[in-house]
Amino acid sequence: MVQSVEIICVGNELLIGKTLNTNAQWLAKRVTTLGLTTRRVTVVGDDIDEISCALKEAIQRSPGFVLTTGGLGPTFDDKTLEGLAKALGRKIEVNEEALRMVTEKYLSYAKEGRMEAAELTPHRVKMARLPDGSKPLPNPIGTAPAVVAEYENVTIIALPGVPSEMKSIFDESVASVLKQAAHGVTFFETSIESTNVMESEMAPLIDKVMHSNPHVYIKSHPKGTERVPRIEFHLSTTATDSVAARQRVTKALIELTELIQGKGGKIKPVKSAI
Amino acid sequence: MVQSVEIICVGNELLIGKTLNTNAQWLAKRVTTLGLTTRRVTVVGDDIDEISCALKEAIQRSPGFVLTTGGLGPTFDDKTLEGLAKALGRKIEVNEEALRMVTEKYLSYAKEGRMEAAELTPHRVKMARLPDGSKPLPNPIGTAPAVVAEYENVTIIALPGVPSEMKSIFDESVASVLKQAAHGVTFFETSIESTNVMESEMAPLIDKVMHSNPHVYIKSHPKGTERVPRIEFHLSTTATDSVAARQRVTKALIELTELIQGKGGKIKPVKSAI
Repeated sequence: MVQSVEIICVGNELLIGKTLNTNAQWLAKRVTTLGLTTRRVTVVGDDIDEISCALKEAIQRSPGFVLTTGGLGPTFDDKTLEGLAKALGRKIEVNEEALRMVTEKYLSYAKEGRMEAAELTPHRVKMARLPDGSKPLPNPIGTAPAVVAEYENVTIIALPGVPSEMKSIFDESVASVLKQAAHGVTFFETSIESTNVMESEMAPLIDKVMHSNPHVYIKSHPKGTERVPRIEFHLSTTATDSVAARQRVTKALIELTELIQGKGGKIKPVKSAI
Repeated sequence: MVQSVEIICVGNELLIGKTLNTNAQWLAKRVTTLGLTTRRVTVVGDDIDEISCALKEAIQRSPGFVLTTGGLGPTFDDKTLEGLAKALGRKIEVNEEALRMVTEKYLSYAKEGRMEAAELTPHRVKMARLPDGSKPLPNPIGTAPAVVAEYENVTIIALPGVPSEMKSIFDESVASVLKQAAHGVTFFETSIESTNVMESEMAPLIDKVMHSNPHVYIKSHPKGTERVPRIEFHLSTTATDSVAARQRVTKALIELTELIQGKGGKIKPVKSAI
């Protein structure tokens, strides 16, 4: 069985449309290529109850992992760890290891001449206040550590919202854990683009190819209109055997191609979709 | 009270990271500028149960509106209307008005020379199969109509996933409905960028300005690092009186600016955030 993942992105900036949620796409892509499945993405605002509710709901669906982004910084609106503590019914307290990480960061900033960094203010200590029983993950390029908590077979990993920090922590500390959980499952996909056949005409043909290739998922993405049709077809599968995965998708691709050409459609390859 | 909105985006392409969810940002921005609040964005795959669950959960939170994107087309993986019917406990049946819209579209394509459009195939009729009691909204540039359903004081509007179609239907048929529901509430926001003051140093100052300006929300977005600080501050409020809204934000902006400058920070304006 493919391990499932839920992504929860925290931030009012996402809910007012100020910020495009590139974090969710980046994480979803990595999760997929690592051999796991993202089941749901949820975006909530900077509110303890909203964060806690979204986390509780995700945990109840029993995914292998819940990845959150945002809300780990020093300001009042960084509320993810409080929301996590509330969701898990745990206290939030200064974690010694996290405090050491944060302290070392500010000491290094002070040494570099930022004298205002020398003092460990309450807003700085806040970044080391973790739900009981959770652990910090080092932040290679920023200040706030990421946080890992376990709850009823669900691993919750809270990542920062700043994309560069989120990505570097993911690559350094999270990717290997997900890869191990994937148990050798790989994802294989390919895309082609057709012109001159309407999507509604292709619909029964997609059904046909999917029926004879039950492990391949074929999704059509209209890029034009029914009037001037241009459709991207995305074919994908997951398997523990990467050669078998490629063969499966290739077989379905050949069948689909012949059907499109039979309708007078033209085909060109599209560069790898994810 | 500000009317709340939930956005549900349907599509496996979003969950595998193939597609960046620009629809959610576009809708969230429009909702905000129309004077309503987006409370949550949920992304689920092309699965009737997942769609139905996400819709039921959203409806239980009693927003004014639930806007969905994606899953209205002619192919097997377009499942939003079935998911909606399941969520509402209603049958799905051919809607005469929707069928007329779809039929007219294909007749016009046939008249333009696409003879393969002349036949009303089951996959084309599928786009006119709506949950009982719902209504179609015309699609000015595509084929599949959007759909409006009412359920326990929640208005659910299902929009297509193709961005150009989604936007044109929203502008033509949805924006006016949301604006009316906003009862004259407007959203006002402004942004500035500071350099040379750490976010952790600003944290207590933001608290101070928010305390003396309780109706203004101030959010800091680190664009650099604590080591080389560059922070964007986003100040926003909602009010029925747009002049009052602007005055409120301006007052908070002046206070924040003085505090940043007091810490040796430099400030420049940032173009409107949303």
